[in-house]
Amino acid sequence: MADKCPSNSTAEKPIRCKAAICRNPGEALVIEEIEVAPPKAWEVRIKVLCTSLCHTDVTFWKLNSGPVSFFPRIFGHEAVGVVESVGEHVEEVKEGDIVLPVFHPDCGECRDCKSSKSNICCRFCNKLYNGMPRDGSSRFKDMKGEVLHHFLSVSSFAEYTVLDITNVVKISREIPVDKACLLSCGVATGLGAAWKVADVEEGSTVAIFGLGAVGLAVAEGARLRGASKIIGVDLNPEKFEAGKKFGVTDFINPASCIEKPVSQVIQQMTDGGADYCFECIGLASLMQDAFYSSRPGWGKTVILGVEMHGTPVSISPYEIALGRSIMGSMFGGVKSKSDIPILVKKYLDRELNLDGFISHEMSFEDINKAFDLLIHGRSLRCIIWMHEQ
Amino acid sequence: MADKCPSNSTAEKPIRCKAAICRNPGEALVIEEIEVAPPKAWEVRIKVLCTSLCHTDVTFWKLNSGPVSFFPRIFGHEAVGVVESVGEHVEEVKEGDIVLPVFHPDCGECRDCKSSKSNICCRFCNKLYNGMPRDGSSRFKDMKGEVLHHFLSVSSFAEYTVLDITNVVKISREIPVDKACLLSCGVATGLGAAWKVADVEEGSTVAIFGLGAVGLAVAEGARLRGASKIIGVDLNPEKFEAGKKFGVTDFINPASCIEKPVSQVIQQMTDGGADYCFECIGLASLMQDAFYSSRPGWGKTVILGVEMHGTPVSISPYEIALGRSIMGSMFGGVKSKSDIPILVKKYLDRELNLDGFISHEMSFEDINKAFDLLIHGRSLRCIIWMHEQ
Ligand SMILES: NC(=O)c1ccc[n+]([C@@H]2O[C@H](COP(=O)([O-])OP(=O)(O)OC[C@H]3O[C@@H](n4cnc5c(N)ncnc54)[C@H](O)[C@@H]3O)[C@@H](O)[C@H]2O)c1
Ligand SMILES: NC(=O)c1ccc[n+]([C@@H]2O[C@H](COP(=O)([O-])OP(=O)(O)OC[C@H]3O[C@@H](n4cnc5c(N)ncnc54)[C@H](O)[C@@H]3O)[C@@H](O)[C@H]2O)c1
Ligand SMILES: [Zn+2]
Ligand SMILES: [Zn+2]
Ligand SMILES: [Zn+2]
Ligand SMILES: [Zn+2]
Repeated sequence: MADKCPSNSTAEKPIRCKAAICRNPGEALVIEEIEVAPPKAWEVRIKVLCTSLCHTDVTFWKLNSGPVSFFPRIFGHEAVGVVESVGEHVEEVKEGDIVLPVFHPDCGECRDCKSSKSNICCRFCNKLYNGMPRDGSSRFKDMKGEVLHHFLSVSSFAEYTVLDITNVVKISREIPVDKACLLSCGVATGLGAAWKVADVEEGSTVAIFGLGAVGLAVAEGARLRGASKIIGVDLNPEKFEAGKKFGVTDFINPASCIEKPVSQVIQQMTDGGADYCFECIGLASLMQDAFYSSRPGWGKTVILGVEMHGTPVSISPYEIALGRSIMGSMFGGVKSKSDIPILVKKYLDRELNLDGFISHEMSFEDINKAFDLLIHGRSLRCIIWMHEQ
Repeated sequence: MADKCPSNSTAEKPIRCKAAICRNPGEALVIEEIEVAPPKAWEVRIKVLCTSLCHTDVTFWKLNSGPVSFFPRIFGHEAVGVVESVGEHVEEVKEGDIVLPVFHPDCGECRDCKSSKSNICCRFCNKLYNGMPRDGSSRFKDMKGEVLHHFLSVSSFAEYTVLDITNVVKISREIPVDKACLLSCGVATGLGAAWKVADVEEGSTVAIFGLGAVGLAVAEGARLRGASKIIGVDLNPEKFEAGKKFGVTDFINPASCIEKPVSQVIQQMTDGGADYCFECIGLASLMQDAFYSSRPGWGKTVILGVEMHGTPVSISPYEIALGRSIMGSMFGGVKSKSDIPILVKKYLDRELNLDGFISHEMSFEDINKAFDLLIHGRSLRCIIWMHEQ
């Protein structure tokens, strides 16, 4: 087939490029030369244009033990790229296409991917995520030949990366790449949680625990649905100002709730409990607080935060019997291949505010600054440009 | 007003009649003479025609401490009666009407009662349930003048009882009273859970923990919705035979699951987990098992069992993140005043099998036998006739 002939000079060969390698948990990333293998069957190699930092990177970067802690590793999973070359059987994208790498797979063929009720691809979810989804192997090695682990099927902190076709979404060339980057994980997750998982209704009350990009995207989703009250809960008072732009109407700083628990404050502000509560931090205790903040009768609690401490969510059978529900989601219930293009269109149609999520921009060599900013609560999303603009 | 004039000789006066009194937790009931006060405003006094025993009676009968343990008490909350007289402001029913007493209130006026999303009446739910809902006082005393506590706003183990109008549902005279009795609690709860809370779909897989009347009513609801597989889980192998009549297709006895947990067996039987799981026993550990038996992607777990051990339900944040949800309900999400007449009609239209739930019948003086039978797993519902037939 004609289109299988590589039209560029790099295809089918390893590419040497720069990557930010994390050698040990919690250590600063080091930019080094690496070699990126060509894509195998069902794989796509992309040139990363820009990437951003999501809290899930930080969580795994800090993780120093357990079955999902792998080092040396190339982190990064929110990004935009351009297809450099494709492996056998890949028909969906071709060289030059603009694509989002998405950590959350969408094979299109399994029971889940075919159902509108699920986005948990049963063929490719639940992998250890440190290599390619199909064979578990790595496409990266350093100049000494040491294998570098992948992260969440993406590893975008490299100038080039290799993705399974189930983790690639072709997008319109019209959307600016930095805005598109946000839809690769955090912002899409928050919007999806508000629209698809909770299905927030006009006039309803919403409580959001954690006002990072994920929590603020929930707020934006709830605002667009016409929620009447959007309560933000965050320890960082600076997030309160940021929140206003995304429709947050009320703020609670748990550090100032001395006399009564946050859940009780929310119950009082909402005539018995919020209709929809979201946990966007990643702590089991706050998942519980979110649940207890929800209204008996119909209150829904949606868990988005990634909890890696092994702590269970513990709820009273009586309190759940009062007609409440609690649900989790990966990627906010977003089906990567079908829903992301819808989000892109909403942005292009000016129905969606994405600009406000970008608080910082920097070049690749400053990537460790992005970690500092996020860890200290000073950024929402920081766009990291991989190549000279 | 003409219809306020009592047309019978008992109205407005206390009635002396028999009741089965429980003096101390776990003790056999004693049938004694009691005095039942006339109904106050918004109240209805009924002559109980028949009653049945639900596991919730047994749970509270055994409860020997804590804020909801009250003795001496008149238990019973599944029943059918005929209105003897009504208090001021009661327009909805009149003397001679056939009614179901329902533990779960429906005031028709609060935010919850007006919403189709909730059945948790925020005006009258959450009461301690040992007296009348509006003023907490009792309408019962024994012959020594000692006050007897109410149970769940019903107390049907008495020949006459007083109910708040929010706990009374007028029903058609066409349905045999013993069948109607089942709709007063357990069977309506199970049907509601399958139809309203879970909303079981055609072709779906269902796992039911506990095959008492509640669990079997879930099965009947799932069967009528066209579920393709209905797995019953019970320690009592006799329940397996009973279950077949209600559509249970597969059985698991946890006592025979030596090599792997029940949840894993269910996952294997259902290609990854049941679409809908129901806990109809009342143990936190089984609520967890039910949850882990549900399918990632869309699995819903509905909790019906009443857990009074103070044990929380403890679930892994990661397992819920895989798109599962867990929800509770009182009375299976049934809205007493509007949904019960629909269930009655379904029975009359032969769309609903109620007969199979009645395993025993007996007269009032044998009420302690009903406890024995239920506790030892030998009955589903035992109809207790209050008066000579
Ligand atoms: N489910 C998914 O698919 C998915 C996708 C993206 C991110 N996530 C997770 O969502 C969470 C949020 O991600 P983010 O990128 O928005 O993070 P972020 O760091 O930008 O935001 C987290 C916010 O929580 C606040 N916070 C921290 N501890 C708190 C506490 N104890 N009480 C109140 N507020 C507290 C911080 O001040 C911060 O504003 C993380 O757990 C991340 O791993 C999940
Ligand atoms: N949510 C509500 O509104 C509502 C209404 C009615 C009843 N309930 C509750 O529903 C539950 C069931 O009520 P019922 O009247 O059907 O009870 P039941 O006693 O008739 O049935 C319970 C079944 O569970 C089985 N069982 C007990 N322990 C078990 C274990 N460890 N593993 C497996 N099976 C076990 C028993 O063998 C029995 O078949 C009770 O907790 C009751 O309080 C709740
Ligand atoms: Zn992310
Ligand atoms: Zn799939
Ligand atoms: Zn009400
Ligand atoms: Zn009951």
